[in-house]
Amino acid sequence: MKLNCDMGEAFGAWKMGEDEQIMPFVDQANVACGFHASDPLTMSKTVALAKQHDVTIGAHPAYPDLVGFGRRNMDIAPVELKALIQYQIGALQGICQAHNAKLSYVKPHGALYNQMMADFAILDTVMQAVSELDTSLTLMVMAVPEAEQVKQLAAKYGLNVWFEAFADRLYTDEGRLTPRKQPNAVHASFELIEQQVVQLCETGTLTTASGQTLAIHADTICVHGDGDHAVDAVKRIRKLVDVTNQDNATTP
Amino acid sequence: MKLNCDMGEAFGAWKMGEDEQIMPFVDQANVACGFHASDPLTMSKTVALAKQHDVTIGAHPAYPDLVGFGRRNMDIAPVELKALIQYQIGALQGICQAHNAKLSYVKPHGALYNQMMADFAILDTVMQAVSELDTSLTLMVMAVPEAEQVKQLAAKYGLNVWFEAFADRLYTDEGRLTPRKQPNAVHASFELIEQQVVQLCETGTLTTASGQTLAIHADTICVHGDGDHAVDAVKRIRKLVDVTNQDNATTP
Amino acid sequence: MKLNCDMGEAFGAWKMGEDEQIMPFVDQANVACGFHASDPLTMSKTVALAKQHDVTIGAHPAYPDLVGFGRRNMDIAPVELKALIQYQIGALQGICQAHNAKLSYVKPHGALYNQMMADFAILDTVMQAVSELDTSLTLMVMAVPEAEQVKQLAAKYGLNVWFEAFADRLYTDEGRLTPRKQPNAVHASFELIEQQVVQLCETGTLTTASGQTLAIHADTICVHGDGDHAVDAVKRIRKLVDVTNQDNATTP
Amino acid sequence: MKLNCDMGEAFGAWKMGEDEQIMPFVDQANVACGFHASDPLTMSKTVALAKQHDVTIGAHPAYPDLVGFGRRNMDIAPVELKALIQYQIGALQGICQAHNAKLSYVKPHGALYNQMMADFAILDTVMQAVSELDTSLTLMVMAVPEAEQVKQLAAKYGLNVWFEAFADRLYTDEGRLTPRKQPNAVHASFELIEQQVVQLCETGTLTTASGQTLAIHADTICVHGDGDHAVDAVKRIRKLVDVTNQDNATTP
Repeated sequence: MKLNCDMGEAFGAWKMGEDEQIMPFVDQANVACGFHASDPLTMSKTVALAKQHDVTIGAHPAYPDLVGFGRRNMDIAPVELKALIQYQIGALQGICQAHNAKLSYVKPHGALYNQMMADFAILDTVMQAVSELDTSLTLMVMAVPEAEQVKQLAAKYGLNVWFEAFADRLYTDEGRLTPRKQPNAVHASFELIEQQVVQLCETGTLTTASGQTLAIHADTICVHGDGDHAVDAVKRIRKLVDVTNQDNATTP
Repeated sequence: MKLNCDMGEAFGAWKMGEDEQIMPFVDQANVACGFHASDPLTMSKTVALAKQHDVTIGAHPAYPDLVGFGRRNMDIAPVELKALIQYQIGALQGICQAHNAKLSYVKPHGALYNQMMADFAILDTVMQAVSELDTSLTLMVMAVPEAEQVKQLAAKYGLNVWFEAFADRLYTDEGRLTPRKQPNAVHASFELIEQQVVQLCETGTLTTASGQTLAIHADTICVHGDGDHAVDAVKRIRKLVDVTNQDNATTP
Repeated sequence: MKLNCDMGEAFGAWKMGEDEQIMPFVDQANVACGFHASDPLTMSKTVALAKQHDVTIGAHPAYPDLVGFGRRNMDIAPVELKALIQYQIGALQGICQAHNAKLSYVKPHGALYNQMMADFAILDTVMQAVSELDTSLTLMVMAVPEAEQVKQLAAKYGLNVWFEAFADRLYTDEGRLTPRKQPNAVHASFELIEQQVVQLCETGTLTTASGQTLAIHADTICVHGDGDHAVDAVKRIRKLVDVTNQDNATTP
Repeated sequence: MKLNCDMGEAFGAWKMGEDEQIMPFVDQANVACGFHASDPLTMSKTVALAKQHDVTIGAHPAYPDLVGFGRRNMDIAPVELKALIQYQIGALQGICQAHNAKLSYVKPHGALYNQMMADFAILDTVMQAVSELDTSLTLMVMAVPEAEQVKQLAAKYGLNVWFEAFADRLYTDEGRLTPRKQPNAVHASFELIEQQVVQLCETGTLTTASGQTLAIHADTICVHGDGDHAVDAVKRIRKLVDVTNQDNATTP
């Protein structure tokens, strides 16, 4: 089990997230590409930081909505969506090349991420965009019960897929995130987060809002780099995951 | 002698230039990268068009000034300038990869172009930016009397350089463009343009505003894709250049 | 019956529409406010042009989507939608003040316009935004069969409403525009446009796609300032409307 | 003596400054207008906050350079500069109208501020822009030794002027700010700040870098709302200024 985190979400004079403190504790950095956050200089610094800590670098493309942080649904035609995903991946690739760093994967951001997991026609467009550019890039998507369907779609485009789960979010019975407006959508206590991480790592399951046990295969857990206790939380999740990774490795 | 033209300068719903009519007659397309003009979809269409006509593709990076079309001087710190050049080149490279097309060169745009030709410290930063990304990319710069100095700077970074001259602009004795505010800065008649093109191709010289003859080595001539008679002018310059290229090829 | 036209839709170096040629023939200019098109200088020139021709000036606020020309649906929270409408109206008001010109009305643009006519909760937010700023501003909306409901909503906010109809679009039986993807959505011949204008002016009705006659009260007809025959079309519609206005004025 | 502070410099999801904690302690809020910082919703919240604390509201227009926070010099033609200043003032006026709040003054931001104080031709353009819009708006400028010249320029446009001084910056003998690159440019200790504030309030003078005493008439002191000890510093300066204002009021 890996840990991934959204990184490089500063913009010009504005800061966001504790990238320098978080980077040493994660495996994969989802680097914003300038459409929902970041700017060329921030991307350059973020890539340098990731490289310094041997963290795998991914592109985090988004809808063109800086003021909305890429969190608002937008109706974008498939041909345009493909082009803006390729533009963003390419831009980060350029920055990576300048640092002799490697771009390894792509994880769509915000509303684009949510819309592609809710509507597989959009996911299809995203996969097409990535595969046209470079089939050696892995696509990181949400770990959902329909994982097989996602894998088949990806296979059509010759793409590899990594599934990610969320440590601090309550899941519905459909294996989707409980909307933030609802109570308990975000785990308030670290105990709940810890429990979810351990369950994910050890049994490959989640306990949903209704109390059901849901099988979810995750390759990586998404942690958050901003918020009051972000750094502490990431360090604790890191420890938990290291322990279970160790256990799994030694289990015959 | 080649012909190069700025291309893909539409933006969203706004059109600019007769790309489809011009593309068949030029050798090199300087493709805008979204900072002064263009958007991902326009870039994608422009790359497809260039590929269709076997036109060599170059990146045309600019200052981040869409409303000013990248034509206004901006004070940008070297480290940021490098990052935004790499971002734009990378973005176009991503689009090219998606079309199985090759990015061959970089020509800075507008105020960035003018400032780097007036202040070689900025040119140095531009060269560093390109070479960090990929030394196989050629840098297209203005053909100036100080060509040797430019080449030495490029050599420091392992970069190849192409020099471009302007067909329709009056030159100063220093080998720079007469500012547009001055009368006669832009050749009004096609005869003057024709004469300048032939002189450049056949003798490697220009006649300056004061009547002096100036030696200028140019690898490529910049033509314009917008304006009332753009298409006609490009076709006529194409013919002229083809003839003198033919002559030069057969001269023992 | 008045004629209104979208104006000031240039952006920086990009032109759109034949504003100078169209302005003398319309009564109301919907001036873009910088979010889907236009920039401060373009707005300033457009206001000066409208004032010169005694054309009534309206604000044409839009979603913040320059590259999409404000034509893409966006999910924007009501409190933010209100603020961005007030921002845009205020900005144009500032430009008007500097020209001693008066801002008289507001007509939302593109996807915002379509969404507010499809979902009256959004229309409610728009009305609230305008009325908080200045209840002497009239809101221009689409002339729909539910005109009474629209008027009642406006009355709640102390707002006056002008209804506009479209000269060149085929209507559904519900009094909405046939989507552009469908054949015949836009009247191809000037005869059809002419017929629709005369019918609107003389009988207050439209003939829908299915051949039904629909009562539609319109205060103003929207004409277009861009496209190949825009200027001709506007002049001809102007003549038609002048004649029927004359007739209506002299009818006892 | 008043206290003014830059406010509303958040942008979308990014925060900046402790507006809620600072607002109760200042007299004048310079509200960003969306070109270097802020967005319509942030402006709306900032105006509401200022109104709640009876703080005088000013517009803080800037160059169109969000990623550079309006701090980079740009070459903008006077006619365009006027329009973009009027646009920004108008936008904030619209937001103020919606809150039944009053816009009282204008203080240019960042590079625009520095350039207009260094080149009075730019200051002239700024004054023209403001006066065309509304001569009842006061212009806030830097308190410089050439105050008489500034007042005469303002008088030409019927404008009132407020002069502001800086509490925490070291001044040159010319009454300008020591560039930030130089050591001691920013007062490191609160004692130095305190001393400068008291000297400004009680004697109308400053001690420059070379130790000279310079007469500077200031109407208002600029304090900062971001940084580690911003809230503390503002509270302490508030106390100092209150005491000297009290003294001055009771001095016969």
